[in-house]
Amino acid sequence: MPEAPTIEYHYQVMFFDTDCAAVVHNLAYLRIIETARTLLAAQLGFDMPAMAKDGVYPVLLRTEADYRRPAKLCDHLIVRGRLESIERVRFWVGFEVVDAAGTCFVTCRQSLALIKMPEARPLRLPAEWSTRFAHLR
Amino acid sequence: MPEAPTIEYHYQVMFFDTDCAAVVHNLAYLRIIETARTLLAAQLGFDMPAMAKDGVYPVLLRTEADYRRPAKLCDHLIVRGRLESIERVRFWVGFEVVDAAGTCFVTCRQSLALIKMPEARPLRLPAEWSTRFAHLR
Amino acid sequence: MPEAPTIEYHYQVMFFDTDCAAVVHNLAYLRIIETARTLLAAQLGFDMPAMAKDGVYPVLLRTEADYRRPAKLCDHLIVRGRLESIERVRFWVGFEVVDAAGTCFVTCRQSLALIKMPEARPLRLPAEWSTRFAHLR
Amino acid sequence: MPEAPTIEYHYQVMFFDTDCAAVVHNLAYLRIIETARTLLAAQLGFDMPAMAKDGVYPVLLRTEADYRRPAKLCDHLIVRGRLESIERVRFWVGFEVVDAAGTCFVTCRQSLALIKMPEARPLRLPAEWSTRFAHLR
Repeated sequence: MPEAPTIEYHYQVMFFDTDCAAVVHNLAYLRIIETARTLLAAQLGFDMPAMAKDGVYPVLLRTEADYRRPAKLCDHLIVRGRLESIERVRFWVGFEVVDAAGTCFVTCRQSLALIKMPEARPLRLPAEWSTRFAHLR
Repeated sequence: MPEAPTIEYHYQVMFFDTDCAAVVHNLAYLRIIETARTLLAAQLGFDMPAMAKDGVYPVLLRTEADYRRPAKLCDHLIVRGRLESIERVRFWVGFEVVDAAGTCFVTCRQSLALIKMPEARPLRLPAEWSTRFAHLR
Repeated sequence: MPEAPTIEYHYQVMFFDTDCAAVVHNLAYLRIIETARTLLAAQLGFDMPAMAKDGVYPVLLRTEADYRRPAKLCDHLIVRGRLESIERVRFWVGFEVVDAAGTCFVTCRQSLALIKMPEARPLRLPAEWSTRFAHLR
Repeated sequence: MPEAPTIEYHYQVMFFDTDCAAVVHNLAYLRIIETARTLLAAQLGFDMPAMAKDGVYPVLLRTEADYRRPAKLCDHLIVRGRLESIERVRFWVGFEVVDAAGTCFVTCRQSLALIKMPEARPLRLPAEWSTRFAHLR
């Protein structure tokens, strides 16, 4: 049966995440989401240090983020992420940043590809993905 | 004649903008674009410290960013930004991050609103905008 | 018996922590240490959101950081922190960033004070600290 | 006559530099100082992209920063930096972050070395420095 990889990452808001409007800054959410994305990538089977040795990196192609409500200092955020769909070289992941009460702060979709550096050449996604994530094609 | 506010902001890539793939990190572009956006906001007539005293902040509602080519350490980036359209409470701005040779690294669209904090209440855009930027409605 | 508050915080290195030298960037260590410092502050009894409502913030007065060895992408870092000494308005905290094998990447000492904003007035440390942390005076 | 390399870098405080205490965050000053340091390095003759091709990077060994007064959103900061002293492999740079009225926000001293990566081997400073900066030994 095909997998549907998901991740849940807990994070408490720090001073450096906030700005002088006393809310979490838009860049901070994307940094927090990036941590969740890296944990999701580990679940997808990416061994980052090994890939880096071969000059292969998961590279962000597109970000769409909607900022819905402001989070504050010390808030306990939950980032829920999932693999949403796969193409030949590109895959999409989706995230919500919520709290335990169900308030939704940010939603975000991102597409990525595996890129061979330094020539910046996109690679095909792993062959096994087409069966492993058949329902996401 | 209605204005079409634009901005051009020059930036040289620093170590802290890069990551171990030896390219500019996706979050760094958005920070650089935010500086351009703040300069554009000044042109639109926003006096941030005065607004902050009243608890009014321009708040990001949505970001769409496409990462097209990788920039590198010490690259001289040019961020070109413009006011793209205005609604009743929301306005859209657009940016390209390019270099002098015309290479395009990132394109980005963002919508914002003026928010009264701490109640997080959206305000109408300034009344004068409907004539000043009539062609962008 | 007087307490000796300590903290241990685990952190895995992310792409945004690294730079194009393929090592963790000096600013990233200080951000990671700040998270450990905030967890230590909770142990010291600081209720940040409550203090923020009163306009009181723990503010950094001085940082001394020694960068000893380079950490890399996906390394599992351990930040060990402790309250080192207290004065009338100032207190000192110390941190080491190590890994499970005992490699030491960074050591850091920082002094802080409680500051009443917006007038930026330093407050005396809590009266109970002189008994609670008597051995650290 | 020996040189005394100095730099002056102007910077306006952005939202992402501030935190919920409505002042510039301690990490932001160090990022701003890093930009000044990179401009100073160019004056010292460092060609970063060429050095990076050879795997040579100026690496921070120690930071000492004193946070003296809080800067705020949109403040116009001036970072003044200078080469302070040189040793065999290590050199020291110093910075003040001030404004046009002479208020001093932060002072900072940092030592660096040229490091050959990936083996993390410190290199001797350029031979010409011992005459060029004779008075700083």
